[in-house]
Amino acid sequence: MNKDNLTEGMLESIEEELPSVIGMIDQTGARGSSLREFRAMLAYHLGWEGDGAGPEARGKRIRPLLLLLTCAAAGGDWQRALPAAAGVELVHNFSLIHDDIQDNSPYRRGRETVWKLWGIPQAINAGDAMLALAHLGIMRLEHSTSLEVAFRAARILQLACLELTKGQHLDLAYEARRHLTLEEYWTMVTGKTAALLAACTELGALVAGVPEDCRAHSREFGLNLGLAFQAQDDLLGIWGDAALTGKSAESDLLAGKKSLPIVFALNQGGAFARRWAQGPVHADEVPALARQLEAEGARAYVQERAAVMTERALSALQKTNPQGQAGELLAALADRLLNRSG
Amino acid sequence: MNKDNLTEGMLESIEEELPSVIGMIDQTGARGSSLREFRAMLAYHLGWEGDGAGPEARGKRIRPLLLLLTCAAAGGDWQRALPAAAGVELVHNFSLIHDDIQDNSPYRRGRETVWKLWGIPQAINAGDAMLALAHLGIMRLEHSTSLEVAFRAARILQLACLELTKGQHLDLAYEARRHLTLEEYWTMVTGKTAALLAACTELGALVAGVPEDCRAHSREFGLNLGLAFQAQDDLLGIWGDAALTGKSAESDLLAGKKSLPIVFALNQGGAFARRWAQGPVHADEVPALARQLEAEGARAYVQERAAVMTERALSALQKTNPQGQAGELLAALADRLLNRSG
Repeated sequence: MNKDNLTEGMLESIEEELPSVIGMIDQTGARGSSLREFRAMLAYHLGWEGDGAGPEARGKRIRPLLLLLTCAAAGGDWQRALPAAAGVELVHNFSLIHDDIQDNSPYRRGRETVWKLWGIPQAINAGDAMLALAHLGIMRLEHSTSLEVAFRAARILQLACLELTKGQHLDLAYEARRHLTLEEYWTMVTGKTAALLAACTELGALVAGVPEDCRAHSREFGLNLGLAFQAQDDLLGIWGDAALTGKSAESDLLAGKKSLPIVFALNQGGAFARRWAQGPVHADEVPALARQLEAEGARAYVQERAAVMTERALSALQKTNPQGQAGELLAALADRLLNRSG
Repeated sequence: MNKDNLTEGMLESIEEELPSVIGMIDQTGARGSSLREFRAMLAYHLGWEGDGAGPEARGKRIRPLLLLLTCAAAGGDWQRALPAAAGVELVHNFSLIHDDIQDNSPYRRGRETVWKLWGIPQAINAGDAMLALAHLGIMRLEHSTSLEVAFRAARILQLACLELTKGQHLDLAYEARRHLTLEEYWTMVTGKTAALLAACTELGALVAGVPEDCRAHSREFGLNLGLAFQAQDDLLGIWGDAALTGKSAESDLLAGKKSLPIVFALNQGGAFARRWAQGPVHADEVPALARQLEAEGARAYVQERAAVMTERALSALQKTNPQGQAGELLAALADRLLNRSG
């Protein structure tokens, strides 16, 4: 199989595994037509049904792909890891359904969000169901690997869920605060973004049968990939092409989001911090404020942190001794995530 | 140990196990003072901290007690089942936190609800954290029993969570509907109330080492106990002393809740159904409407169903051949749940 075919094959298998996990809704207890609408909410969110369904609505499936590539690069049979791949993707989607309620976001990927279409009570519950299915999905590793691997994997995913809620708590709490230390920012991002990516690479190594001490390198790879990715994302939120044009959907300055460059500048206490304290930013201020942030060293700081964490991620990846095409694809995926243009 | 001491001992052990599970928040990833408020939300909801904390605020811990008694009555060491007992209690409390948001309820057990105190976004997230801790809690069976039992138990609890969300979906969907069949009502209640009680008794038997085919009797006991309990609860919601005095918090007629007697009468299509279709019930109508429901056979129907399911529950319990003091206490607990006065 050539490289493109390997990635394509993995993505196709993920798209087959996911509906099979969602189908567990009908396998026990209540079933039938009364639950058609319930299943439809989950299928809509996953981009399979409803207005705007299609590849664009499904997202990039980065997390399951990262998991399967890590497994294959560690010499494992990636097809056995599919239940875990479905599990991480469904945990990610559970968090998106609840995030959209918490952030009062009416749109995601150009489509109305679940709460906008079905109301907040049903959307909270749809997220809860997606989460139960994620864990039931990963437990199917019992059949493709062993009961012990399935148990360890389920626990790794559950710990990642706990970290997600800790990160989310801090993110929500920080909205109401004026001041935030850089350490607080990193703690939040470790939970909210990096914990699930760390679980992906750890799970890939676990299914491949990598011994526990070596799995730590895989985990380290995913964790730092997540941190570097978030720093990069925060850079784009100020200096990406879309952000600089001043569209509110793209600029963290307009959204009032406490992203890394902004937290850095607020801690500097200079001109940017004084302007920020005066209230919401207007669209025509965006280019000048971006220049001000840069002048105060925010861009250089974030670039430096992103570079350090990218270096840590790639160094950890090398320690896992990635093999074959999957190993090359894994490095390429990391590169794609970390060197995006605006 | 005499009977009272056995129940007391179990309840004390449950109250020790729960904080130890909640403490897992600080064991991995982010920790420290930034998460003090997060832990405080969970401790508040569980009745340990904040205004009105104390035994009254904690609930009766029926589910973990049912689990431990089932384990002991099946000849098992109930102390080994404590991680499972904590798991079911935390799943129950996760569902309460989200229910209170979904039902827009500002009070529970005389105290403000989590969303009322911390807002909806943080309350959704606190429920999500409670759920992750529930599952991490039950996985600690790995240490008190075996990896296999821990895996099976985690899956049973996860399946119960899926059933909970299915029941909750139907409950929310039914609010907006005029008509509801009795079958639809029972499907909803099976998910929303009975599935977790069935998991409690199944888990107790699992930890005791009961073979799989015999565990079905334990599960059947919990399932029918849950259904009978709900029918009984719905009776009290119309004909209980508190409901008949017409206090809105106690009467399902005033709350407009589609409980079993009401669903029965709506399907009869008589005078009650015609009145119900005309809009909200006023407090001074409550006694007459309760009499009308009774005249149309709703009370007799619900009493008959409660009796049938109580019979099924007790028959299934007998098949498990319950032993010793725990066996007697289990029958007494079922009796207490099913023969409550208003």
